[in-house]
Amino acid sequence: MSNIEFSRGKTVLSNRNTMIQRVLIVGATHGNEFTGAYIVKKLRNNQNLAQRSTFGTFTLLANPQAFAEARRYIDKDLNRCFRWEDLQDLTRSTYEEVRAKEINETFGKEGQTPVDVIFDLHTTTANMGLTVIIYPYSFNLKMAAYLQRINPLVKVLVLPESKLGYSGLPSICGLGCTIEVGAISSGVLQAELFQWTEALIDHALDYLEYYNRGELPSLDPMLTAYQQMGTIDYPRDDAGDIQAMIHPQLQFQDYEPLNPGDPVFLSFDGDDILYKGDVTTYPIFINEAAYYEKGIAMILTQKQEFELY
Amino acid sequence: MSNIEFSRGKTVLSNRNTMIQRVLIVGATHGNEFTGAYIVKKLRNNQNLAQRSTFGTFTLLANPQAFAEARRYIDKDLNRCFRWEDLQDLTRSTYEEVRAKEINETFGKEGQTPVDVIFDLHTTTANMGLTVIIYPYSFNLKMAAYLQRINPLVKVLVLPESKLGYSGLPSICGLGCTIEVGAISSGVLQAELFQWTEALIDHALDYLEYYNRGELPSLDPMLTAYQQMGTIDYPRDDAGDIQAMIHPQLQFQDYEPLNPGDPVFLSFDGDDILYKGDVTTYPIFINEAAYYEKGIAMILTQKQEFELY
Repeated sequence: MSNIEFSRGKTVLSNRNTMIQRVLIVGATHGNEFTGAYIVKKLRNNQNLAQRSTFGTFTLLANPQAFAEARRYIDKDLNRCFRWEDLQDLTRSTYEEVRAKEINETFGKEGQTPVDVIFDLHTTTANMGLTVIIYPYSFNLKMAAYLQRINPLVKVLVLPESKLGYSGLPSICGLGCTIEVGAISSGVLQAELFQWTEALIDHALDYLEYYNRGELPSLDPMLTAYQQMGTIDYPRDDAGDIQAMIHPQLQFQDYEPLNPGDPVFLSFDGDDILYKGDVTTYPIFINEAAYYEKGIAMILTQKQEFELY
Repeated sequence: MSNIEFSRGKTVLSNRNTMIQRVLIVGATHGNEFTGAYIVKKLRNNQNLAQRSTFGTFTLLANPQAFAEARRYIDKDLNRCFRWEDLQDLTRSTYEEVRAKEINETFGKEGQTPVDVIFDLHTTTANMGLTVIIYPYSFNLKMAAYLQRINPLVKVLVLPESKLGYSGLPSICGLGCTIEVGAISSGVLQAELFQWTEALIDHALDYLEYYNRGELPSLDPMLTAYQQMGTIDYPRDDAGDIQAMIHPQLQFQDYEPLNPGDPVFLSFDGDDILYKGDVTTYPIFINEAAYYEKGIAMILTQKQEFELY
């Protein structure tokens, strides 16, 4: 495990000492990920649950049409539609591209009711337990460290800095996180994972309350987290058809070390296909259903120590 | 466990002592159930695998459009489109209704190359292990008993007799079975479940070979199997929105006894909802993703002894 100082990137709220005024909890950014959608519905029916004294909480069903059809998206993955240039591009007019613009015009920095923090609730068919995915900002690292202190099972994934800008929904704000819970099939609820996610949101809202009050608990100065390094696709033939499956020894082994020479895939004929990298990596999103079409069998990460500054 | 003599229904091949001449292996009847689709592709690339000396084996990707889009169906569930009256109905013209007619005109009893036995390969998000689903014909019961003898983990589900006629794809033939394997998310492959399904097909083809040669192995005269008795829907509000999830104690407990008073659902507010039936039942297809829209949270079965006659 390397001990790398975290590059400072854009720092946003934390250096301005601004209060958090508005928080947005988002479900159904992907219409077939039910956990977030039903948590949003529950919060709408029980407004006291997400209420705190120092900020207002809004909720959003991001892709209602896809949710109604229990599909990830109608025309295009909504969670890839929020790059700044794309939001300005008048020629982009699919259902999700229009929806992204609406969401940005409502909750984005220049929107009608700009929010300071976003929690975007997702599920995955990979065995990622309870994962908090953050943009590489100091505020987010500290919040993630707090969530991991409350629940040591929480894993933290830090997205790399992006020259092109981020395309995910939370990027319209930057602070907050995406919550991924799994393994769970798309199109279903599982009570235990629903409750894990609920508890995590509750603690995250508490954190924001402490932040606003200047009562943040002290945290270890270092956070162990994972940083995305690259992806591996399935072996494919010339027509693009996949030729192998995730190896049984790797299935559901998210966040476990994968060493050079370990089996990664099993061909349909029963042959092992080995990991050819030269360093140990920690694969995540292993066998995520939605990533077959994106050419991703898993995402490779590096386990790192991040300094909280 | 009651000991009920099995009602004799239609008997087909077994009383005619006809040879099996053509067998059809079907994948992607549901386009997001990848296991069957990729097994069919493998069989097409390795024609010796499904070859036997006494009959011909055909393969079919039943819903190629839905498979290309990784969706269960485009317009309508294909596996509900094969009722005899519906196949004759010229007004039925959705993608799947037309596809059902094409499949029937090719492989059905009056088709160009009518098949004698169909194996239709499915997956489920429920924890059904390796399940063989059969229409209540003597031939099928014996084949299922053989498959269970080879692999004692195989469960057998016997569909009730239907006055309206069956609507599933295998009903164009009647003999054979649907193979369900799970728990697995839709839209993914899992190597272990792929191999289980492959082995089951291999044994089923062996059985047909023994049948044709008059070399059937002797079997116990009784088969323990499950018969579908009814379904339970999720609790819903007036708008049809579900109000509860499968109870954590019941999740993944397919084929385990559910007794009166046992918890079935957990409401979003955390309240247990109990099973109000007055007899022990054996739920299956618990939390199947595709059944949310059909108003089915699980299928209730009775565990029975079936006489092989």
